[in-house]
Amino acid sequence: MERVFNFSAGPSMLPVEVLEQVQTDLVNYPGAGCSVLEMSHRSPSYEQIIDEAQATLRRIMDISDDYAVLFLQGGASMQFSMVPMTLAGRDDTVDYSLTGQFSTKAYKEAGRWCNAVAVASSKEATYSYIPKITPDMLSKDAKYLHICGNNTIFGSCYNTLPDVGDTPLVCDLSSTILGKVFDVNKFDLIYAGAQKNMGPAGLTVVIMKKELLDNEVDPVVPTMLRYKDMAEADSMYNTPPTFAIYFAGEVYKWVEKQGGVAAIEKRNTEKANMLYNAIDNSGIFNNPVAVEDRSIMNVTFVTGNEELDDKFVKEASKVGLITLKGHRSAGGMRASIYNAMPIAGVEKLVAFMDEFEKKNS
Amino acid sequence: MERVFNFSAGPSMLPVEVLEQVQTDLVNYPGAGCSVLEMSHRSPSYEQIIDEAQATLRRIMDISDDYAVLFLQGGASMQFSMVPMTLAGRDDTVDYSLTGQFSTKAYKEAGRWCNAVAVASSKEATYSYIPKITPDMLSKDAKYLHICGNNTIFGSCYNTLPDVGDTPLVCDLSSTILGKVFDVNKFDLIYAGAQKNMGPAGLTVVIMKKELLDNEVDPVVPTMLRYKDMAEADSMYNTPPTFAIYFAGEVYKWVEKQGGVAAIEKRNTEKANMLYNAIDNSGIFNNPVAVEDRSIMNVTFVTGNEELDDKFVKEASKVGLITLKGHRSAGGMRASIYNAMPIAGVEKLVAFMDEFEKKNS
Repeated sequence: MERVFNFSAGPSMLPVEVLEQVQTDLVNYPGAGCSVLEMSHRSPSYEQIIDEAQATLRRIMDISDDYAVLFLQGGASMQFSMVPMTLAGRDDTVDYSLTGQFSTKAYKEAGRWCNAVAVASSKEATYSYIPKITPDMLSKDAKYLHICGNNTIFGSCYNTLPDVGDTPLVCDLSSTILGKVFDVNKFDLIYAGAQKNMGPAGLTVVIMKKELLDNEVDPVVPTMLRYKDMAEADSMYNTPPTFAIYFAGEVYKWVEKQGGVAAIEKRNTEKANMLYNAIDNSGIFNNPVAVEDRSIMNVTFVTGNEELDDKFVKEASKVGLITLKGHRSAGGMRASIYNAMPIAGVEKLVAFMDEFEKKNS
Repeated sequence: MERVFNFSAGPSMLPVEVLEQVQTDLVNYPGAGCSVLEMSHRSPSYEQIIDEAQATLRRIMDISDDYAVLFLQGGASMQFSMVPMTLAGRDDTVDYSLTGQFSTKAYKEAGRWCNAVAVASSKEATYSYIPKITPDMLSKDAKYLHICGNNTIFGSCYNTLPDVGDTPLVCDLSSTILGKVFDVNKFDLIYAGAQKNMGPAGLTVVIMKKELLDNEVDPVVPTMLRYKDMAEADSMYNTPPTFAIYFAGEVYKWVEKQGGVAAIEKRNTEKANMLYNAIDNSGIFNNPVAVEDRSIMNVTFVTGNEELDDKFVKEASKVGLITLKGHRSAGGMRASIYNAMPIAGVEKLVAFMDEFEKKNS
């Protein structure tokens, strides 16, 4: 079976050049006499791999020495707890903007630990827009404002960061990290699951201001959920997900070879525009998201007719355009067009949409 | 560079047949049109992979339907917290037997949450033996006794399980799971990091009595640390470490092809006996562990002379016997001879030890 165009929301397509290189080196990594999968995380061969992964990520995201970079486990979902448990005490207040399923989950997990406040929400409009946030909306003495930078399920995105004044900004960048250029200095803590733009599921990257590591943390918080312990051990407090970090490191090098994140963003924007134009010019497809809040990573669209949506997804799958079904909470279709989705994949999808419309209207 | 014999404590050697199969299928998994690394965890292709992995593990370990099998993240270190936080309330008492570094870490993490009691310890003898435990030594109403089944660092092992009476038994089997036959019914909860006998780092397997899932859990405990939520979502509460689970599933099939865990245990015992005989019959090497508590997975030995130990490790490395240095807290040498270490590797090590002794005594 030929390789398909996979529009999955994550895990999703990875650069084929990286897959092929990893395949070549899989049984016997050059100079090591063993697979990366077999290397002790304390071995010089592996230390070089993890150090290089971090150094490359720092280069491509322009991360300053004021920030720690951590390779952790547990996905964004574990960060939903790790963030409040280390950045806030039990009596503290933390603010959340609810723009979809994941930000709402993050808010609920924070509520287990401290006083979590939903300062904004677009739930009443099925998360079809990003609420504007101004400093006066935030809680007095809030330890941070948490946002989900890009909403994978609903296809919306903070194309402009909220104005938080002096309140620290925490951001879940899982589905847009490395997909567009971010000024890391505008964030106090960024976290991202790797399985969209960085590599295999099972790796979470955290980029945080080093000064936050010195926060006093309640003794009840597990060591594994303490950023300071992870940072002091250079992400090796316990055995890290060694293969996933290695793979991500290869993806970081690939990003650099493509011309860096700016070049990737340019291509991603082209891909997204091609798809949004096709939707906007179509007579049967609609994108429900406010135009200024549209995501360039996850493009959602509906026909307004569930049977027709199902037919679209099934027929697309037959021609090698797979995993286009929207999330059960949003319905319709979703095309996740992360960094590794080639322009040819989007072109093929757009052509298929056009053909489908002709046949079904 | 030829493939070496890697005596690392984990990550460590994996079956080369499995590595080769994974390599073949890496870019384009048969019938899927994409890599396993790219598959949505919700796709039918991937659901078949994770279901088959669980079914194979259940077969080779003879796990009954009374037990849940979970594929989690965070390593044994995350279990050090997850166990007490779900099996005990803040005012409850839990018992620990301290037989090495990891059981001591587990005990300390439990102490963050509830009343953790060290009911036995061999610390005074540098963990060179396994203390005998009888029901009268346990705390009244202890929620469980926690043991570390095999001590990777010190090379000791519970070759006989402790007599716990009616107290639930929780066991860290990271470095011996699938290495010898265990009667799962004797345990209430087993956990194991995958990176020794099962596959890549970044996957933790939990096997627990289903009745424990209904324990009342304090609201402050994060959802990601609740077994019940993980079980109800079939280990897909969030994106699981998909590739690591796939790889482990291939290793489970390999174990089955080898004749199952009993056949593997027989070979492991041969390998360990060969090495212990070489040590016991040598004039310069000593194993510090009580004979009845020796591990068949991690064999520790010292010359009693640090310089000579260093020389041994360096010269062994030159002939393709790598990662033989003992853990910094134990010193000397350690040969981890997990399931994937072939007999030829142990034969080569024994021959090297003999030669080394002749040259250096």
